[in-house]
Amino acid sequence: MKKLDDLIDVFAKLPGIGRKSAARIAFDVLDRSKADIDRMLEIIKDSHANIKHCEICGNLSENDICEICANEKRDKEVICVVEGVRDVIAFEKSETYNGLYHVLGGKIDPLNGVTIEDLNLRKLINRINGDVKEVILALNPDLEGETTSLYLTKFLKEKNVKISKIASGIPMGGNIEYTDMATLGRSLEGRVNVDDLD
Amino acid sequence: MKKLDDLIDVFAKLPGIGRKSAARIAFDVLDRSKADIDRMLEIIKDSHANIKHCEICGNLSENDICEICANEKRDKEVICVVEGVRDVIAFEKSETYNGLYHVLGGKIDPLNGVTIEDLNLRKLINRINGDVKEVILALNPDLEGETTSLYLTKFLKEKNVKISKIASGIPMGGNIEYTDMATLGRSLEGRVNVDDLD
Repeated sequence: MKKLDDLIDVFAKLPGIGRKSAARIAFDVLDRSKADIDRMLEIIKDSHANIKHCEICGNLSENDICEICANEKRDKEVICVVEGVRDVIAFEKSETYNGLYHVLGGKIDPLNGVTIEDLNLRKLINRINGDVKEVILALNPDLEGETTSLYLTKFLKEKNVKISKIASGIPMGGNIEYTDMATLGRSLEGRVNVDDLD
Repeated sequence: MKKLDDLIDVFAKLPGIGRKSAARIAFDVLDRSKADIDRMLEIIKDSHANIKHCEICGNLSENDICEICANEKRDKEVICVVEGVRDVIAFEKSETYNGLYHVLGGKIDPLNGVTIEDLNLRKLINRINGDVKEVILALNPDLEGETTSLYLTKFLKEKNVKISKIASGIPMGGNIEYTDMATLGRSLEGRVNVDDLD
């Protein structure tokens, strides 16, 4: 049935949804009331039209400037550079950071055709003026993330700003025995003098 | 952000989608072009408005009568009773059945408030006239499916029709050693004389 196949296709195109799950979702959607579907479509339409990227940091926002950049209580001296909006949400949930963010919108990934030109980098460079004292690189510790960090370091070195990188090591609750070699290596390399810990 | 939370909620309400996957889907959707989103919304709206249940068997259909019921080449003497539309699709994919179907739209499940009244049963009883020679019960072999099969057998016994049930046993490619007791029991109970096999 053409219409059913089209509907399943719509859901199968969503990330992380296979054809079987898409079919399950399609049948669920068909069983809903018209009011329910209208509400669902309205929300998708409205959010797609009204959620944009913050002009300063690239985070998602309903306004031109996002809630974090507009918040007077945030520390304007630190910028945490992340790959995506989801990373911002993760850090915010951890409630351990009170500075600003900069969302790159990806990482350098030549195999998938993402070059430094595709990243939200120009705005980051322009943000580093006298006020910003530190840039924290918080990219995922994989090949592309490391490459991107290297590039960013190169660009930022010309600016008078401290550049740091989030620590890589054994996760809390993790187990040394079962930790991969690369992570163990990082945990040694990044070891901290116990006197420096509070 | 209210609008983003609403959007994530929309996807988190789909079956099998957790909050993390819903967030991932929401970000993906926000990154798409307006044309892409409009097309997606149009397909959902159109299919929800135009796909209905077949008046005869309860299968999904773009017309009043579904493709299977309307197909002159199908064997009108056999009706295979299934729980849902997805079961019809599974049997059709197996290309091993040429009769008709009847979709109950669920199974008796008192714990979740589904009684025999909620099933598409009246129409099934009415379909059993002189033409139908056999009704195959093809419900899932779990507690609710078995209960439903028992009820259906009770109702259908009053009609002059052969009632059969799909075989339960070790799946093809399965392993006796790792098969649960209930399935092994069923495989013995439902054993077939080798002379009857072709």
